Amino acid sequence: MPNLTRRRLLGAAGGGALGIAAGGGFALGRTTDDEAVAATTFPFYGERQAGITTPSQDRLAFGALDLTLTSAADLRDLLRTWTTAAERMTRGVPAGDPGNEPLAPPEDTGEALDLHAARLTITIGFGPGVFERDGEDRFGLASRRPQALRELPALPGEDLEAERSGGDLCVQACADDPQVAFHAVRNLTRLARGAATLRWTQLGFGRTSSVTSSQETMRNLQGFKDGTKNLKGDDDDAMRKHVIVGAGEPQRWMHGGSYMVTRRIRMLIEAWDRTTLDDQELTIGRRKLSGSPLTGTKEHDALDFKARGADGKPAMPLNAHVRLAAPETNGGVAILRRGYSYTDGIDAASGQLDAGLFFIAFQRDPRQFIELQRRLGATDALNEYIRHTGSAVFAVPPGAVRGGYVGDGLLRA
Amino acid sequence: MPNLTRRRLLGAAGGGALGIAAGGGFALGRTTDDEAVAATTFPFYGERQAGITTPSQDRLAFGALDLTLTSAADLRDLLRTWTTAAERMTRGVPAGDPGNEPLAPPEDTGEALDLHAARLTITIGFGPGVFERDGEDRFGLASRRPQALRELPALPGEDLEAERSGGDLCVQACADDPQVAFHAVRNLTRLARGAATLRWTQLGFGRTSSVTSSQETMRNLQGFKDGTKNLKGDDDDAMRKHVIVGAGEPQRWMHGGSYMVTRRIRMLIEAWDRTTLDDQELTIGRRKLSGSPLTGTKEHDALDFKARGADGKPAMPLNAHVRLAAPETNGGVAILRRGYSYTDGIDAASGQLDAGLFFIAFQRDPRQFIELQRRLGATDALNEYIRHTGSAVFAVPPGAVRGGYVGDGLLRA
Repeated sequence: MPNLTRRRLLGAAGGGALGIAAGGGFALGRTTDDEAVAATTFPFYGERQAGITTPSQDRLAFGALDLTLTSAADLRDLLRTWTTAAERMTRGVPAGDPGNEPLAPPEDTGEALDLHAARLTITIGFGPGVFERDGEDRFGLASRRPQALRELPALPGEDLEAERSGGDLCVQACADDPQVAFHAVRNLTRLARGAATLRWTQLGFGRTSSVTSSQETMRNLQGFKDGTKNLKGDDDDAMRKHVIVGAGEPQRWMHGGSYMVTRRIRMLIEAWDRTTLDDQELTIGRRKLSGSPLTGTKEHDALDFKARGADGKPAMPLNAHVRLAAPETNGGVAILRRGYSYTDGIDAASGQLDAGLFFIAFQRDPRQFIELQRRLGATDALNEYIRHTGSAVFAVPPGAVRGGYVGDGLLRA
Repeated sequence: MPNLTRRRLLGAAGGGALGIAAGGGFALGRTTDDEAVAATTFPFYGERQAGITTPSQDRLAFGALDLTLTSAADLRDLLRTWTTAAERMTRGVPAGDPGNEPLAPPEDTGEALDLHAARLTITIGFGPGVFERDGEDRFGLASRRPQALRELPALPGEDLEAERSGGDLCVQACADDPQVAFHAVRNLTRLARGAATLRWTQLGFGRTSSVTSSQETMRNLQGFKDGTKNLKGDDDDAMRKHVIVGAGEPQRWMHGGSYMVTRRIRMLIEAWDRTTLDDQELTIGRRKLSGSPLTGTKEHDALDFKARGADGKPAMPLNAHVRLAAPETNGGVAILRRGYSYTDGIDAASGQLDAGLFFIAFQRDPRQFIELQRRLGATDALNEYIRHTGSAVFAVPPGAVRGGYVGDGLLRA
């Protein structure tokens, strides 16, 4: 079955369903993605893991897991199993046999059987706990720990919930169809039974940051275009300088990898929605409709930190978000963002919407994020309207080659 | 601005963004919906509210609100405001002015400004509390209460959470883009400030039941095709018989309306995933891959309740889900389902995924649902793998005509 797509599989097994499915589109009322785009796949194998510099897809399912296995050999087995299943799913093929064996549980849970690959990427990372937990070298891997991989220090502006933070492993599944993304996290979790348990998950329904230079800037739940000045995944120089771990790293298994920081940033939406347009724009430092900086007229105009208004004050306030976040004011620190909007119902304590931005950033050292957040958390005008409620950091190893598995550089005996 | 679409608005205000946006599709990495389909709108005004018999869109945002206003006149004002904003949003136009007045809060929150209409429908309903709460006639509307609208009785197989149940008003927003659906619920909630507060919300990421005869049957999170035998919204006879309130209803304002029942049905996914294919198929009464009944070979084959297997037992077990749910075994009771898959992270008590089906059904009397659920809740083999954790019932009035508002039949002085 390895060469059948899910669509073809359905046709073969489903008694004529292919004919219906191939019609696609509006008349059938099924998912309206353009067929050619929806069937597009990003290769799983490669120098880098997909899902870092890959154009950001529209939807996210993210899972963080805690390891219950007890040896490096078991971790190796899990990563081999995950690699095989993940590579299949990114081709639009079930994780395993979805049901030819009546007396066994199906090897794929089935909810994505009729769906396209939808540009699925699956990105796997290692939390600090893989190398040490409470001073214990759980799997004999402490000597292979990269210096840069440590739990993040306490940072200003955070109000973290343990049950939304941390984790030994992460699975970031991005796709244009949320059911395809969820299916990936669910099946990898299922395959980890006895080896790891889910610690937290997060769905993202709308991508914010664009990741390549051809992607349009999307709006976040504050209604502003988000990520205009994001690094671009197709800018190789910037990736080598800021995002991809280079030859200077003593832990060779991380060469070509990156570090992922996730922050669940709740937006206090009701308060924001009662704020005047002027205040919103002064807080962000950009115009809401056009996305232009306050010192310009078009979205991609450069930020002018010296410009002054008619009143003599800086046209871009000193505490405006984009001013404080800009590399020009931060000693050149830059990160590659890959964020998604989320909403998780009502916050029980406040009775208000629990919604905001699930921030994901890749950098060659988590200290890039830490520096930035120390500054933003202390003085950003935006802090009045946001709370960081979840946090995690992962070492994302380079991609696997065919025949290898994700993390084989770390676990090679 | 009323005649500008959000796309045109962006072009007008955004300094050339229109040129980029019009390209659409993969190269830009933006939402990949086919442009023509994504720009499709369903009319808000009409004999019935849209979102009942309308082809089911791919994504759901649902909000239930509690009224804090204190008079029928205030409720009338709220519904007028909602009607104006909802009609605009379903055309792909902002709820109000998103930002030409610097010293006022924007009249639209902005996150859908660049997005298509995406076939958005907004459906509004009244919970029992509009007519009575704790024996009190809160708004002088008790005499207009339809007999059929009562809180649902306790039903077998439920483990309801108050904070996921009930509500005085509901807003069902269905669209092919989740950000468009969320935007609708958020903006109607914002416009209700001082009149109503959110009680609970639910996102659905994958439609299950097809609602018209041309829609393909989708899979739920158990991996089975769900809703093959659903009533069809384009079958007028069936709608009149089972779904749309007719002239027999003494409350004339409900003529052409319907009753909505929502049930948040958690699936015990980890247990299901460990079950054999055989057990899964005997539980549902259908084959997993093809969707055919156990007594047939193709998805739409009729159920045969008399067929016996080689062992002499019924080929379709007596407690199989589709057997117990079929009108043929239920005195003809039928409902129109419009369900969505959901996942809301990890259930704190069990440490397992909180995922399943957000069930929405329309019927001309909630007793249709009650009868069905009494039977299913008592003996359905599926009960081992599901829990009903949320529940609500709403009277959904007929559609508004231009110049009127949703619920004007009820609130006319």
